[in-house]
Formats: sequence, structure tokens, C-alpha cells
Amino acid sequence: MVNSLLTSDEIAKHNSAASCWVIIHGKAYDVTDFLPEHPGGSKIILKYAGKDATEEFDPIHPPDTLDKYLDRSKHMGEVDMSTVTVEAKAVDPLESERQENIKNKPALEQCYNLLDFEAVAKRVMKKTAWAYYSSGADDEITLRENHSAFHRIWFRPKVLVDVEKIDMSTTMLGAKVSIPFYVTATALGKLGHHEGEVVLTRAAAKHNVVQMIPTLASCAFDEIVDAREDTQVQWLQLYVNKNRAITKGIVEHAERRGCKALFITVDAPQLGRREKDMRVKFDDNGTSVQSTSGEALDRSQGAARAISSFIDPSLSWKDIPWFRTITKMKIVLKGVQRVEDVIKACEVGVDGVVLSNHGGRQLDTAPSGIEILAATMPVLKEKGLDKKLEIFIDGGIRRASDIVKALCLGAKGVGIGRPFLYAMSAYGLPGVDRAMQLLKDEMEMNMRLIGAPAIADLNDTMVDTRAVALHSTPIEDALSLGAYDPLIAPAFRSKL
Amino acid sequence: MVNSLLTSDEIAKHNSAASCWVIIHGKAYDVTDFLPEHPGGSKIILKYAGKDATEEFDPIHPPDTLDKYLDRSKHMGEVDMSTVTVEAKAVDPLESERQENIKNKPALEQCYNLLDFEAVAKRVMKKTAWAYYSSGADDEITLRENHSAFHRIWFRPKVLVDVEKIDMSTTMLGAKVSIPFYVTATALGKLGHHEGEVVLTRAAAKHNVVQMIPTLASCAFDEIVDAREDTQVQWLQLYVNKNRAITKGIVEHAERRGCKALFITVDAPQLGRREKDMRVKFDDNGTSVQSTSGEALDRSQGAARAISSFIDPSLSWKDIPWFRTITKMKIVLKGVQRVEDVIKACEVGVDGVVLSNHGGRQLDTAPSGIEILAATMPVLKEKGLDKKLEIFIDGGIRRASDIVKALCLGAKGVGIGRPFLYAMSAYGLPGVDRAMQLLKDEMEMNMRLIGAPAIADLNDTMVDTRAVALHSTPIEDALSLGAYDPLIAPAFRSKL
Amino acid sequence: MVNSLLTSDEIAKHNSAASCWVIIHGKAYDVTDFLPEHPGGSKIILKYAGKDATEEFDPIHPPDTLDKYLDRSKHMGEVDMSTVTVEAKAVDPLESERQENIKNKPALEQCYNLLDFEAVAKRVMKKTAWAYYSSGADDEITLRENHSAFHRIWFRPKVLVDVEKIDMSTTMLGAKVSIPFYVTATALGKLGHHEGEVVLTRAAAKHNVVQMIPTLASCAFDEIVDAREDTQVQWLQLYVNKNRAITKGIVEHAERRGCKALFITVDAPQLGRREKDMRVKFDDNGTSVQSTSGEALDRSQGAARAISSFIDPSLSWKDIPWFRTITKMKIVLKGVQRVEDVIKACEVGVDGVVLSNHGGRQLDTAPSGIEILAATMPVLKEKGLDKKLEIFIDGGIRRASDIVKALCLGAKGVGIGRPFLYAMSAYGLPGVDRAMQLLKDEMEMNMRLIGAPAIADLNDTMVDTRAVALHSTPIEDALSLGAYDPLIAPAFRSKL
Amino acid sequence: MVNSLLTSDEIAKHNSAASCWVIIHGKAYDVTDFLPEHPGGSKIILKYAGKDATEEFDPIHPPDTLDKYLDRSKHMGEVDMSTVTVEAKAVDPLESERQENIKNKPALEQCYNLLDFEAVAKRVMKKTAWAYYSSGADDEITLRENHSAFHRIWFRPKVLVDVEKIDMSTTMLGAKVSIPFYVTATALGKLGHHEGEVVLTRAAAKHNVVQMIPTLASCAFDEIVDAREDTQVQWLQLYVNKNRAITKGIVEHAERRGCKALFITVDAPQLGRREKDMRVKFDDNGTSVQSTSGEALDRSQGAARAISSFIDPSLSWKDIPWFRTITKMKIVLKGVQRVEDVIKACEVGVDGVVLSNHGGRQLDTAPSGIEILAATMPVLKEKGLDKKLEIFIDGGIRRASDIVKALCLGAKGVGIGRPFLYAMSAYGLPGVDRAMQLLKDEMEMNMRLIGAPAIADLNDTMVDTRAVALHSTPIEDALSLGAYDPLIAPAFRSKL
Repeated sequence: MVNSLLTSDEIAKHNSAASCWVIIHGKAYDVTDFLPEHPGGSKIILKYAGKDATEEFDPIHPPDTLDKYLDRSKHMGEVDMSTVTVEAKAVDPLESERQENIKNKPALEQCYNLLDFEAVAKRVMKKTAWAYYSSGADDEITLRENHSAFHRIWFRPKVLVDVEKIDMSTTMLGAKVSIPFYVTATALGKLGHHEGEVVLTRAAAKHNVVQMIPTLASCAFDEIVDAREDTQVQWLQLYVNKNRAITKGIVEHAERRGCKALFITVDAPQLGRREKDMRVKFDDNGTSVQSTSGEALDRSQGAARAISSFIDPSLSWKDIPWFRTITKMKIVLKGVQRVEDVIKACEVGVDGVVLSNHGGRQLDTAPSGIEILAATMPVLKEKGLDKKLEIFIDGGIRRASDIVKALCLGAKGVGIGRPFLYAMSAYGLPGVDRAMQLLKDEMEMNMRLIGAPAIADLNDTMVDTRAVALHSTPIEDALSLGAYDPLIAPAFRSKL
Repeated sequence: MVNSLLTSDEIAKHNSAASCWVIIHGKAYDVTDFLPEHPGGSKIILKYAGKDATEEFDPIHPPDTLDKYLDRSKHMGEVDMSTVTVEAKAVDPLESERQENIKNKPALEQCYNLLDFEAVAKRVMKKTAWAYYSSGADDEITLRENHSAFHRIWFRPKVLVDVEKIDMSTTMLGAKVSIPFYVTATALGKLGHHEGEVVLTRAAAKHNVVQMIPTLASCAFDEIVDAREDTQVQWLQLYVNKNRAITKGIVEHAERRGCKALFITVDAPQLGRREKDMRVKFDDNGTSVQSTSGEALDRSQGAARAISSFIDPSLSWKDIPWFRTITKMKIVLKGVQRVEDVIKACEVGVDGVVLSNHGGRQLDTAPSGIEILAATMPVLKEKGLDKKLEIFIDGGIRRASDIVKALCLGAKGVGIGRPFLYAMSAYGLPGVDRAMQLLKDEMEMNMRLIGAPAIADLNDTMVDTRAVALHSTPIEDALSLGAYDPLIAPAFRSKL
Repeated sequence: MVNSLLTSDEIAKHNSAASCWVIIHGKAYDVTDFLPEHPGGSKIILKYAGKDATEEFDPIHPPDTLDKYLDRSKHMGEVDMSTVTVEAKAVDPLESERQENIKNKPALEQCYNLLDFEAVAKRVMKKTAWAYYSSGADDEITLRENHSAFHRIWFRPKVLVDVEKIDMSTTMLGAKVSIPFYVTATALGKLGHHEGEVVLTRAAAKHNVVQMIPTLASCAFDEIVDAREDTQVQWLQLYVNKNRAITKGIVEHAERRGCKALFITVDAPQLGRREKDMRVKFDDNGTSVQSTSGEALDRSQGAARAISSFIDPSLSWKDIPWFRTITKMKIVLKGVQRVEDVIKACEVGVDGVVLSNHGGRQLDTAPSGIEILAATMPVLKEKGLDKKLEIFIDGGIRRASDIVKALCLGAKGVGIGRPFLYAMSAYGLPGVDRAMQLLKDEMEMNMRLIGAPAIADLNDTMVDTRAVALHSTPIEDALSLGAYDPLIAPAFRSKL
Repeated sequence: MVNSLLTSDEIAKHNSAASCWVIIHGKAYDVTDFLPEHPGGSKIILKYAGKDATEEFDPIHPPDTLDKYLDRSKHMGEVDMSTVTVEAKAVDPLESERQENIKNKPALEQCYNLLDFEAVAKRVMKKTAWAYYSSGADDEITLRENHSAFHRIWFRPKVLVDVEKIDMSTTMLGAKVSIPFYVTATALGKLGHHEGEVVLTRAAAKHNVVQMIPTLASCAFDEIVDAREDTQVQWLQLYVNKNRAITKGIVEHAERRGCKALFITVDAPQLGRREKDMRVKFDDNGTSVQSTSGEALDRSQGAARAISSFIDPSLSWKDIPWFRTITKMKIVLKGVQRVEDVIKACEVGVDGVVLSNHGGRQLDTAPSGIEILAATMPVLKEKGLDKKLEIFIDGGIRRASDIVKALCLGAKGVGIGRPFLYAMSAYGLPGVDRAMQLLKDEMEMNMRLIGAPAIADLNDTMVDTRAVALHSTPIEDALSLGAYDPLIAPAFRSKL
């Protein structure tokens, strides 16, 4: 069968909701029937109807998406890309500035801490990508509180301890790791780097830390697993699908592919409103793509909402035992936020919990993981439950001193997400590598300075948590302040 | 009878305190005898003596004012408006800028939360109107504390609760509502929108929430009631008049017209000093209209003071039973500020109280409603009084998370005032509609994320109020800071 | 006897430390022998040796100074002022700007609160005068804390109290006053207004409040007493002289002249370092007048230090009974700062204490009067001492709400100093008049809004003082912040 | 023997790692074999291979370094400096600005407090020197908290105490001193002043205070001792060397030379990361001297790290008794940070401890010495240990009021470091002299104003420490804030 290539002209005819074709990676697809089902709304596809949509498609969709979800009959064949002219885009001054920034970005060696990568990433990332990664829910109070809370915990260092040899290795859910942090799951890695999550896989391998694979990765799950080195440990983060058969498939596949633990996300029955993400989206489109009220509200809520519509909001405690029946992996609940629920987790028999507010992206003014930890451990100890499961926290960790504080308060380890995304977005793998090395350097120093040669030496007498619940570190409420006119003194008459 | 039209020239003769006529909506009125009685002072009328005063008159006075309060003999007849030349006003640069702003205002869909409307309103409203709406008492500490207080209350969310279906409907004083907020009473709606309070009536109808009708509305009471849809519920906010016969008339009329509850304002025996309002007033007049001291102080205190001179400062607990004798409506005390008075309210047998400081417009450094609520409910529960009446709060609510906090702490609902005025001022009815829809979207999300599928599931274990009374969120004292010179380092000699 | 006038030329010959004459108000004085004794140092006099020193002399010295302290033999006679040419001063750009400001200053009616006067005064006062009035000790933390502390005290208002009639009159030390504040003693009134303290006397008379006459007034004591109206009450503030005979003379004279109470300053055994005052002084002189270290330190410390060298630092509790033997006036200790000393004051039998830190001008990080009051009254009540003496506070009062808080907490009244100086400096008597009237207006409103028709109705259930000792309102440490370089992110290479 | 001078040309041949000579103070040295051992890395030496390195060498190395550590065979002889041409440096705009600043710096008399010297030093010091002195660990939270903590301690002054005569003299470890502070040890004094630590020796002598000699001085130990006056007391600060023989030698030599006490640093088993110092270093080199990751991290950590590689991180409690066997000097542990370790110090029998976090340069978010002191003394008193040893604090002292607070809380004295370095860097010996005199002036005033004529009169009833552990004074987290984008209101369309 002669399978001649499609030309740009042919595809351009299918440029409407009546017949909508798009080009992705040199192949044409008929997505007409799929339009109403697209979780991100039909408008964003129609924008590319009859055209090449690869650039927009890539960071949001794992490469196997079309094969998985679009019937083969709609795969219209290869396109003669020489017939496709790249549309001249209007010069975007922000984009020119970004390209300038990329050219002039600081040398990697000038990044001395994790926040430095964030400062660089902010200026070299696309604004939509930056908005997606950096945004939090509502007023972003929890987003900022997550890190701020660590500054309200003060050390009580021991001196004159022999700290010549520092051993920061430990175990998490049975895995031996070189330092007590893991790369936590974050969505859409390709927004920051064209290779996506596999960059994190490689860095985690090099530093012997665990990577948690996100459900909403830009890379396909198998790509990420394939990038794993022999002894490397990976866990799976799971958004539970309304269709449990799909969930079962994902879990079983992950176990088969060697994942060692299943982190069930429990803090996201619905994804939070991240207005920064929404706002940049709007600006991007130039015009109001969401003009009719009801629909508008659903559509304007950024990438995250769109890609998460499958998540089951009815997931409840009674569903947890079922997971034990479908997997032998360790099971951890990710996103627990009160001691009562940690106790329930003990009762239901899971292997661990992550005290987390989802990076400040869900319920604003939810407290930080570290504050919940400080409130939780004394209760667990009193009830004799502190050895029943492993407790992790994530959110706001930027310094090894933050890790030390969590461990002093009883955490087994901490998850770090955004900082590695920023390091990857700014400098690729070498960035993530350096970020992890910096944490190790800081960790070694901190353990020396607090007088704890090994992880087991960290304990709760080494921290003073009295101020943590006072919330005395103020977090600016930029929207309120912006809308408010400060009082002014009487005006002097101005000169002519 | 031939009733020939009056001409501009004839009216212009009556341009002094000796004989003062003004044109309002094409009719002439002789207000000479009324001058000394005008609550806003005579000067403001004399400014328009012999001229058309419609533009200034409208937002401050309900349309039936002249019919009600000025004897028919003083209605001098219709004016031939073709003889009235519109005075060329000096170009006001602020007004030009405002007109520019109106032209360039963001699309409605770019408003993602209630504070966004406020930011837009600030730039598109007349400065006098903005000053009247946005101002608070004295240093505006309470004004800002009202919202800030919510940020000192932290959530304790439940996870793994089935939150597929969220039911945010509830009842308030027997009325079934779709979400636990009501449109609280605010004065002078026409300052923000030429149609005034009826815009709020329509939005409330659409979203099935209660509207509280203000005594000091720009629209006539009956206009607002006439705008009501069949099943819609309205309440009446009441400033009690020194003349109880007038009060009786108002209450009986409201009940007859179908109002379901009477909210007696108890926090305003005298209206607060709102200096922003006073300051903008002064600037507006250009010259010092209040040059002699005693009188000056009374006259310079903005619109609110003027229109409120009828309020009875002697109103006391012993007056409350009388209201029971004149109406079958539910009776609620609006503006209660300490638990002792809530207990008194129980004893006197009213149906509810609003814990409120009048939007920060009365006594500065009075605490927020939410803080009073947190202090009040434990006492009421201990005394077994918590079911005796319904407790509402208002002040500072900008997010559905604020509503959730109030309900967790025992409030039956919350009143929202300014945000809807701002939405109306910036975008009219569609603005208020979107503001309410945004609150519903946020509310649904928040209830999911806190793990409460229905209003009844919200309880006080879901919030951490330990920090609320610490007042650790600093509120800038702009006047003090402005008058203060920070210390400086020794000066270097400057180069030539 | 023919007493021919002196000429400028004759005087100009005496232009050195060897022979130093100066002209004051048209008369020549030989101050050669007095140079080493001048409390302000000899250099400042030598600057005017052989010239007219009136302008510099006046605000610092009461008019009877030369008659009192310079032997008649050194009064060299009248000068023919027509021979004295006014020196052309270099144009000082700051002074030109100040003259501009005076011309364009806001109308008095635009001042709506006490802080408004301060904002105006800052721009219309000479910089040396502003520095003297506005400065505080060291980092000026206490200076600012004095007002800030009031913002950490929150009201608990009563509603439904009949507040038609408000009676804010009370008594202090037996004097009936119209409102519970008094004009407290402040030095060097002529720095702000050429007439000095008598302006305050007149305003106090008009508003029926007490004036406390300062030891360090610019006007002579008798001038201030002479300005008193018949029924007006004055008190005397006393710095106790090392020479008790002088002190005795002052006290007896004051009693004879009708002063009703004696306020002995106990917080100033040495005057505090006010660096703003010192800094402006240095700039003023242009060159370093204090180049040799030891002496330099004494001389560079501003006007206040110089004029206070007579104060007795050995004054102690055992000296207090002696005052009872020399006067029948009420005796009050001004500047008490801890409850233990209030109890001692009870024991030693004085009539009252002022809880005060001297307007933040003495010991920095001393607490505010209002905080001391909140800590003191419960202890006094427990010991049954709360009726034994009258307690006043001063420092930081800017609003009637501050007065109300003090009275709720048990103060009999409050002293107000700087605000009246600023009102006087900016607008003269009408300024002080308006400032007092504004306080009365605010007071009436506040008493209505808190539900207290009379002073006796104010009590400690009406305030919430839980936050006052937490010091959660941060006070900027400008010198530290200025010297500190914030951390920065890695630098991008800049473009050419 | 004719010892002809070396020429520039000869030396220039040895310009590589294969053969590396450098000129220091006119002599040539062959450092080829030493390159791999240089604590600061070989790259920094190679930069000067074949050239004159004196300027870079001097501030970092005591003058006896080469004699002590480089074999005589590598001392290649004197250089004919007339053959050495000074390399023309590129004009550094920052350096020109600095030279301008030096020319225009304020008169010494314009410095009224210790922070003034810091503000001047910041502008007149080399940026590398400023970075080394002023930097702290990580986010510099502890660095700033050290001073900030004093502002959360409030005075409770006594009045009516006879304070005519103030005696601020006291004893520390048996030494009689004129005021209870000592000059604490700080490294690399020549970075700020070409004469280095001897400047501090002379100032300490003049003011009769103790100087603690640093291990890492720029001057040789003997130079500093030689500068001592007869009755002057010096102490030795000791970093314990891995090679105890070296340590023994240092201690015995110090005792022989008359040092009276040995302060063993216990808070620096590893030096902290001071990123400001690292960052300025990087900029200085222009290119990335640390390009390969592993090594890079060690080498980029500033001067302090390099010079401290000999410090023994295994030093522990069991090593302390050995010091008693090698010296009769008093022994003090410098850098204790929790009450448990103070108790251990009592048990091990040392003479004192310094509660210190090493000037905020080690473990960030370690608490301030003053906070530790406030927590420690009550425990010691309860256990009857408060007289067993002398307690000192250092860190953040900028005012005599800070000293007074420490003494009220039980400290025997306080160490002051950076402020004297800044005074020295800005104004040399006269600067340090004035700084000390200012502290004395402040101290006299403070003791008068708090009502304590002698050191023994200071006690813990004179301070209110309730707020100190609340940490309500916020410390800005510049890196986080810089990386964060505040939320913004909807954008208005901009005009063309």
C-alpha cells in the first residue's frame, strides 16, 4: 500500500469544530469527536485546528497519550513537514527578555543554595511554566507559610560531641538512602525541561535518593522507570481514578515495573484554585476565551484542573483496605493534615503518611507539614503509635536545616519537589545534581553543628518549637494590601 | 389649566439663602425654609442655589425624598430643561484618568476573587464614592483587622471523606439559602452604580441568597422590594429613629411588604469618624466650607454623618421588647461585640445577633467579628445558650475560606457588604453575579478540601484559633509612620 | 546722666574668649567670665561673640535669664541697633523649602486628628526644633512603642446603653476638668512658636483642662502663670536641683502663685541620648565643634543636656518626705515605671504617680505607660492600694481611644505633650484649640461607641489586654536595617 | 657570600604548577610542593605564580607564616623589586566609588553609636573584606536575631535611687575591668586595617577592658602580646588542632606570654557556610575557578573555611580534662548553646562558658546568646549551680542597654566583636577608642536610668523577658522573598 504523506494544505481544511485535525510530531490526528471530551476544553484545541500543535501538546501530555486514548482510525498518517510553514509569531517582548536572560544566566557554581535556583528559574522559564510550578492556592498564604514555619523553629545545638564522621544515611520504607529526602511527585516536568521527569530520575540515581513518580508526569510512566538504574528505588504517587479498574491497572503495572511503595494522594479530591496560573493563562490567550459564565469558570482554571478531572472525590477511608488487596507495595497516605487522621491511618494499617498540604496548592491557610508534625508526634507517642508507621513531611523545605528540624521532630524523611524542578528548569541535570549536592553539604555541616553524628542522634530536645503555633512571622496579603489606600496626612498645596 | 414650564432664568434668581430654588430631575423646588434643617448642612445646597442639583442629589437621596419631606407647596413645577445650559466644568485630571481607566478596565473574566473587584473599583469609581465605601474609622485598624483576623485562623482539614457531592445550602432565620452568606446592608448604593441597591436584589435572586435592605439606601425601600422575585427573601436593616412613630411606620411597612427579619443596628448610636471620607470631601469643595470651628466639625464629617442625624443614641436594652409588640418578623441585633451582650440578647429573647463592628467604620481597635465569635461560642456552649439564637458575623469576608471558618466556629451565616458594592461599581450586575459565583466555586472547593460534604459537617475541630487573639499580624499605622523620621546613619559628604 | 547708645563697632571689638560681648534684644552683655559656666558650652556663645545673638538665644532661655543669672555690672547698656547690620546668611536650601512649605501649608480644617498636626509640623518647623521635639532615646524604640502599645489593646464595647448624653468631665487631684487629659510639661516651647508655653496656657483655659508648667519652659514661670485665667488650674513640673534651696524657692513660689500640684520628675537623673537631636546639631555647625573626645561627648548632646546639668542624680525615696514639709500642694511622682515603685509611692504617701518613660526620651526599650498600667492595677487592687493614689500615664496618646483605654485600665487621666507642641508649631493657638476640640469630638464618639455615658462607666471589662505584653507589633530598627545588606540571588551577567 | 638579588624575569619563569614561585614582601618563595597542601586551594596561588602576591597574602596570613610553615630551602632569596612592574589593574568602578567614599566619609564625631561605624565601614571597606566580616550562615537569620532578640527584652526601671556615682567596673575571671565587656576574638583583622589586631590591643588598653586573642589573627600571636601594656589582660581563643601537640604548644606559649584565660571554641567543629562571603569571592575571580563539582564545593567557601581546615571535629567532652593538665589558665568553653551543656560544663569543672552562636556564622536559626541566657539562669539557680562558673554571652551587642540586659539576666560580661572591627576599619584606633567611649557613656546613662549605681545592683527584676521566646520580631527572608512573585490584581489594558 502506498502511503503518501499528507500535506499542510490538506490538513488546513480541517480547521473547525466540524472537522478538526491537528499535527503532533509530524503526524496528523482527527480529534473532531474528541473535542467535547478534552479535559482542557475544546477551545485550546481549536486554536490549533488544521495546524501543528506539537509545541503546546508536549509538556502537558505524556508521549503515549494519543496511542492510548485516540482510536487508531483517527490517526490520519504522517505529514510532509516540509509543506508546513512555521508561523511567524508576533515578537513577545517578555519572550525576548527571557532569551536574553537565558544567555546571561549565572554560572551554575554561583548557585549556593536551593533558593538560588528558584531565582534563576523565575527569569529563564516561560511565564506559563513558571506560573504553573510556582503558584499556590488562593492568597498563597500556605504556600509561603510552608517555608516560613521552619524559621519559627529554633535549634538547641549540642556541643563537644565527636562529629568527625557524619553518617546521614537512613532508611525510608525499607529503602536505604544516602540522605533523608526523596524527590516528591510533581506534575508536568516538561514545562521546565524538554526531557521531563527522567532528569530527576538520573539525579536521584546519582545521589542515591528515592524518586516518587507522579501520576501527572509529562513523561510516560514506563519512560521514567526505564531511566532507573539497577539499585535505584522508585515509588508511585497515585491520584485515584473514578474508574477503579484503571487505578488497579496503574498500581499493578507499577508494582510489576518494580515500584516499592504506593503514595495515595488524599488531599486533592479537587484541585485548588491557583490564580496566578489562571491569570497567566488568560493573558496568554490575549482574548477572553471563557466569555460565558458557567463554562468560563471551569475552563479558566489552568492546566492542573484540566488534567485532573478524572480524580475521584468520593475516595474515603473505607476504600483504603482495597489497595492492600491489589498490591504488595508499601502503602502511604499523602496529604494527611491532622493528628486524628494519622491515628486513623494507624488503625487502617497503612505503612506511612505524608503530612502535607500539597505544596500550598490546595486549601489556603492549611498549616505546614512541619507544624502538623510538631503537634502530631507528642500525641502518637502518648498513645504508643509513633512506631506504627513512618511519617514524612513535604512542603517548604529549602535548606538541610529544614530537614534536620523535621527529623528532630520524628519524621523519617522529607519530600522535596519544586526546588528540583527549578534546578532542572534552570540548568538541567547538572542543576539538579548540584542542588542535591548542596543539600548534602549543608546536611553534613548542620549535623556537625547540632552535634548529631548520625540520623539516630537527632531528637526533639534539639529544637524549640514554642513559637511555631504562634504564627508570628507575618505573611503579606498582597491582594488586600494592593486594594487598600493607606491613610494620608493633609495635603500641602502644590506649587505651580 | 395651562402650566407653563419654568425657565432657567427664573430659577437663577433664587440663588441665595434668602430665596433658594434648585432643579432636581427637571423640576424646581423651593428649599429656602428647609436650608437650616438639611442634615448635610445648608452650604452644600447653596452651592447649587438657582441651578440644577440632580447629579449631586441622586446618590445621596432616595427618589421619594422630596415627595416625602418637602411640602407640595414648595414644588414649584417643571422646568424647560432646554433653557438650562450645562455648566462647563474645569477639566479634573483625576476624572480624566478615571475615564481612561473605565475604558481600559480588565475583562470581567479576569477577576478571580473578590479582592480583584476591589482593585478594579478603586480605579474606576469616583474618588468621593470610593472614599465613602472604602473608608473606616480613625486609623482603619479594625477595618483591616477584620480580614486579617481570618489569616490567623488555620485549618485542620479532614481527608478521605467522600466529598463527591457538596451541599452548601443551609437555612438562616428560617430561610433556605444556597450558600451561607447574605448581602448585608450598606448605604448609598447609587454612589457606585446608577441603579443602586436593586442591582444587589437581582444578583441575590439569581444566587438564592438573602438581601438585607439598608435604611440608608439610595433606592427607595419600595423600589428594592419591588425588584424582589417571588421566592426571594429580604430582611430589613434598621437605624432606630428618635421618633419611634417613624420607626414603627418603617417596621410595619417592611413587614407588610414581606420582609422576614428585622436587623436592629446597635453599634451606631453615633456614626464613626471616617477621615478618608472627610478628607476627600474637603478637597472636593476646593475651599474651606467649614471655616468656623464648632459648626465646621459637624459639617466636615462626610455624607454618612449628615444622613444619620436621626439615629437615636438613647436606644437601650429596655427598648428591645417593644419591637416584639410591633412586628412578627424575626428580630436580630446587629453589631453585638462581646459575649456578655450575646447573653443579654438571649435573655431579652431576640432571634439572633450579628457579631460585627460595622465594617470597621465605628470604633477603631474594636475586634473583628470572627475573633468575637471564637471567644463567644465556648461560653455560650458552657451555659447551654448556643442553640437559643442564631449567630451571624460580618466584616472582612473576602474568601469562601473565611465563610468556612465562621461556620466551623458556630456562625449560622455571614454578611458580605463592600465586596458586592465593588463588584457592582466596577461591572454592574454581571460583576455581582460573578462575585457570588466565585464564592460558590471557592466554597465547593473549600468544603471538599476540608472534608465536609455538608454545612452540618463543619465543626470547631476543623480550625485552630490559638493565634487569633495574639494579633501577631501587624497592621500598618500609616499616619504615625508618615509623621515619623527614621533614624539615619552619619551622612557622607556629598560630591560637588 | 547721658547714657549714649553703644554702636556695633564697639561691640565687635569684644569678639573672642578674652573679651566676649553679645547683643540680646538690643542690649549688650559682657559674658566673658560666664563662658566656662555656660551649660551649653562656650563655643556656641563664641560663635556670636561681638554680634547679635538674639535669634539663637530666645527659644532656649526664658526672658528673665540674664537678669537672674548675669551680674548687673555685665549689662553694658543699650545698643544703637541702626548700626547693626543683619548678616546676609548663605541661602539654605532646606530653609527655602521650609518657607515654601509654610506658604503652602494645609488649611487648619484639613487636620482631622492629632497626627495630622505632626505631619504638618514636620515640614514647617526648623529642623533643629523638629529634631529637639521629635527625637527619642537611642533607637527610638520606646518612643514608637508608646503609641504602638495602644494598638495591641482591643476594645470590648457594650451596646444598647443609653448614650444620648455623654459626660466626659472628671476630676484630677481635686481639679474639675472637662475631659481627662492634661497638657503635660515639655521643654523649650519657643522652638515651635515665638510666644512659647503661654499659647498652651490659653488653649488649656479655653478647653478647661489642666496645664503642667515645665521647669525648662522657654517662657518665664511667671509669664505662664500670668497668662492663666481665673478658674484655670496649673501644676508645676519639677526637676529637682542639686541645690535644694533653689528647689525650695521654686516650689514655694509656685505654690504662692497658685499652682495646685507638684509633679516631681523621677525618670531623669540624667537626660537620655537623643541622637537625632545630636546629629542635627552637628550638621548645623558645619564643622566639628566638638573635636576633642572627652569634652566633645558632653557638648554634642543637644540642647536638652546642656540645660539640664543642674538636675540632681542623687534624688531618692528618702528625699520625698521633705517636699511635704515645704509645700501643701499635691505631690505626684512623674516617671514611675514598675509596680514595685508604685507601691513604694503609696508607702511614702504621695498623692499620685505618672506612669511614664518621659516620652521615650530616656531609657530605650523601657515599656510604655499603658503597658505598665495594665500590669500595675491588678496588683494594686489585690493589695487594696488602688484608691490610695491617683494614677496617670503619658506617652504616645494620639487618639481619644487611647485615653479611653487608659481610663478603662484605671488611670485617672493622661498627659499629652508633643501633639500640642506640634499643633502650636504648625498653627499657633488655633491649632492647639482645634487639636483639643478634635480630642473632645473623638472622646464623645468613643464613649458612645463603647457604651459608657460617663467616665465612671469605663472599666477593665471593656478592654482586652492579652496582646499588650506580647509586643507583636514590630518596631523597625532603622540603623540595623540600614547597615545590613540583604542576601541576594546569583547575579545575571548584565548586557553591554 | 655574594647574594645577588633575583629579578622579575627569573621569577616569572616559575609560573605554573610545575614550578611555582611567588614574591611576598620582596622575597621569592618556591611553593611548588606546597600547592596541594594549601588550605585555600592551589588555584588562588597559581593566579599569582611568578608574580608578586603580597597584597593578597597579607590580610589572610600572619607575618610569621612562611617562616613557620615553609622549609628554609624554599626561601629563594630577595628580589630586586625595581624589576617588578606593578600590573595595571582594570579600573573597578566599585573600587573608585569606595575611594570616593573614603574621601568623603563622615567625621568621627558624627558617629553616635556602634551601628554608625558599621554604616560607614560598609561603604569604605573592600567588598571582600566587608563580606568576610559581615556575613553569617545560610539565611543570616541568627546573625540578625542576635541583635533583634535584645529588643524583645523590656526594662523595668527603678526610680528614686541615688545614682549620682555610677561604678560600672567589675571583674571577669579574676580580671578587674572598667566596664563589663571584652573584645572578643575575630579572625583576619588586617582585612579591615593594615595593622590588624594590635589596634584592638591598644584600644583595650586605653579603656581597661580585656582582649581575647584569636587563633586566626592576621597578626602573629606574639605581635599582639607584644602590643600589650603592663597591666592589661589578654585571653586566648583556641581552635583545637587535630594535632594535639600543636595545640599544647600554642596553649603553653600563651600561658608563658601571660594570657590569663583559655577560651576553647566548641561551636565550630566545621565552619558554617557564609554565602555572602562565597558570592563575593566568586565575583572577584571573574571566572569560575571551581568548575569541577566535588572540589568546587570545597574551594568556593571563602577565606574562613580554607584557613580552618585544621580544626578537630572530634573534640568532645572527654577531651576537656586534658586541658587542665597542660595549663593553669582559667578555662572557658566558648559557644555553648543549651542549658544541658552548661550543666555539663559545671560537672567537667571549667571556669566559665560563653553562650554564643559564633556571631550567627555557624548554625542558622540557632537562638541568640541572650535568649539562651534567659532560659539557662533559672535552671542553674534551681540546681544551685549559678555560682559555679562565670557566664558570658556574645552576639548582637550594639548598645550598652544590651550589656545591661545580659547582666540583669546573670551574665558576668559580654563579648563584642564586629562593632570594633567596623570602627577600626572605618577610622582606625580613634574609631575603636570612640566606640568604646560611646559604650561607656551609654552604660553610665543606662545604669542611672535603670536605677543601678553599681553592677551588683543589676538583677532579673529589672527586665521583662516574656516576649523573648515568642520571636515576634520578624526577620526578613530575603532569598525567599526575592524568588517569590506577589499576587497581583487584574491588569488594566495599557494605553498606546
